[in-house]
Amino acid sequence: MSKVNAYAASEAGGTLETFQYDLPAIGNEEVDIKIHYCGVCHSDLSMINNDWGNSQFPLVPGHEIVGEVQAVGSEVKGLKVGDKVGMGWYSASCMHCDQCMGGKQHLCGDAESTIVGRHGGFADTVRGHWSWTTLLPEGIDMAKAGPLFCGGITVFNPIVLSGVQPTDKVGVIGIGGLGHPALKFLKAWGCEVTAFTSNKDKTEALKKMGAHNVVDSTDSTALEGIAGSLDFILNTTNVKLDWNAFLTTLAPQGKLHTVGAVLEPMEIPAFSLISGEKSVGGSPLGSIALTRKMLEFCVRHDIYPTVEEFKMEDVNEALAHLEAGKARFRLVLKA
Amino acid sequence: MSKVNAYAASEAGGTLETFQYDLPAIGNEEVDIKIHYCGVCHSDLSMINNDWGNSQFPLVPGHEIVGEVQAVGSEVKGLKVGDKVGMGWYSASCMHCDQCMGGKQHLCGDAESTIVGRHGGFADTVRGHWSWTTLLPEGIDMAKAGPLFCGGITVFNPIVLSGVQPTDKVGVIGIGGLGHPALKFLKAWGCEVTAFTSNKDKTEALKKMGAHNVVDSTDSTALEGIAGSLDFILNTTNVKLDWNAFLTTLAPQGKLHTVGAVLEPMEIPAFSLISGEKSVGGSPLGSIALTRKMLEFCVRHDIYPTVEEFKMEDVNEALAHLEAGKARFRLVLKA
Repeated sequence: MSKVNAYAASEAGGTLETFQYDLPAIGNEEVDIKIHYCGVCHSDLSMINNDWGNSQFPLVPGHEIVGEVQAVGSEVKGLKVGDKVGMGWYSASCMHCDQCMGGKQHLCGDAESTIVGRHGGFADTVRGHWSWTTLLPEGIDMAKAGPLFCGGITVFNPIVLSGVQPTDKVGVIGIGGLGHPALKFLKAWGCEVTAFTSNKDKTEALKKMGAHNVVDSTDSTALEGIAGSLDFILNTTNVKLDWNAFLTTLAPQGKLHTVGAVLEPMEIPAFSLISGEKSVGGSPLGSIALTRKMLEFCVRHDIYPTVEEFKMEDVNEALAHLEAGKARFRLVLKA
Repeated sequence: MSKVNAYAASEAGGTLETFQYDLPAIGNEEVDIKIHYCGVCHSDLSMINNDWGNSQFPLVPGHEIVGEVQAVGSEVKGLKVGDKVGMGWYSASCMHCDQCMGGKQHLCGDAESTIVGRHGGFADTVRGHWSWTTLLPEGIDMAKAGPLFCGGITVFNPIVLSGVQPTDKVGVIGIGGLGHPALKFLKAWGCEVTAFTSNKDKTEALKKMGAHNVVDSTDSTALEGIAGSLDFILNTTNVKLDWNAFLTTLAPQGKLHTVGAVLEPMEIPAFSLISGEKSVGGSPLGSIALTRKMLEFCVRHDIYPTVEEFKMEDVNEALAHLEAGKARFRLVLKA
């Protein structure tokens, strides 16, 4: 038995406080990670506030973890103590369902979130299954790699899933924690990239990140001006937008893909889909194998989230910064 | 100049009456087809009633045409007088836009409908561009082949577009003029096929056509009973349904595809797309090359629409039969 030093909310909406808990003896297939850095995701806030009704308190948030293996169970495969690793939203899945066996472990119906019913990465240690503990490639910048395990893979996955080609013209709606690595990925993909934002102050920063064009997402005239031009649009916002206006900006066979969990149903006119063979899709994170490929891609192209670093003990300050919409563009806690 | 003997509506909602019109000298790239059979599609009714506001009167409906080439212009390619051919919703497109050059002529912004601004197939002759005049394969049953050129290709296209595999479990919503050839195609594709219908009287007929399962599309308990099971659902109806209930019947990465132009926007919860990497798409007809492949597939598998034949002069009787919802399952006029 060992002690974990963590930061936890004791009730919905509570500030985080120091919190110690005991780790039982390690399971045969489990890995303990000594945490170096942990990103701060908007869904950590949602979980602290119990927005989705599935939070369990005390709650230790944090699911964009990088660190090193400090202990392994007897059946752990491919990892040894001292290996540099990462862990994201999920830290276990069933291993044997059609999705897991098919390499789509992130679609497993029994996948276990790192911060639902277990304690996450705002701590010195986290435990998970070996399969969801991803070895980091040589040369990766650990100080910036944490957010790749949630925000990064969430936007990398749809690029691959939708078959985006280097010859494509693409758009990203909402350039925050998720949207900004999407811009960088799509720039490296070879695409012509349009950033849709309602915040003009970001324009120069977005062009530096790889946006060829910056368009006001709330300006219907601007949207009409690029009608029929885009092959792929990735929505990272969770607010209601004029979806049909974005469908109109798509070229024939264009795809609108959302990773933003808009609460109001999306109103999609069938005719807008039919006439141009368009589609609307969505996705959560990505598979284990794709996460590995993404990490290699990031090292090869020197792509990292643009991060602001806080000390782990300043976690409440970081959360307040995020909640105030001031993050430029992703926050990371240093253990 | 030659005379065409046709049936035309002289005003919106009018009954069809005999109508003669002059064909000018044939253009260099044009083909005249002597009509043997013409299918009756629900969109002929819509055009007669000017439901879409783009009808021009007098209107000669009919866009599921088979017959033989009776004249060709000087630049016509691949066709000669006497060839057995078919023509569908489109009879010309621009030939040089990205869509046309890319083999997706049905997505050409300047494609010309056979019955919008020109006269269609409820006649002894129809004229169109050579590229949209499709040579029929040897051995095809011309008496049943007409509806393949609109209803058939409209449901064949999404099967190919969505990458449906023989190992998939699939569903078809609405088993009428479009849905019934979809059942036959998907059965021949090797899939497990579920027919969604609100008409229990059709159950035995649908099983004969290839449906392994018949499910009441309005029974939410029945839909819940097959949650997570289908890889692909094709909607052929144009009524508002509980789209989220159908999304729930999809397996991870499942696709809901509509060819029915539902007028009310489809209400699609983003979370239903995200959690299982699902998508909602749509499509109109299909390309010229795919139409050729479909015709070969039909001959190889002996797949035809189930038709009721009327004489061309009984066209008003046929239209009344269709409008009353009595067609089992597609009507064809014999010239």
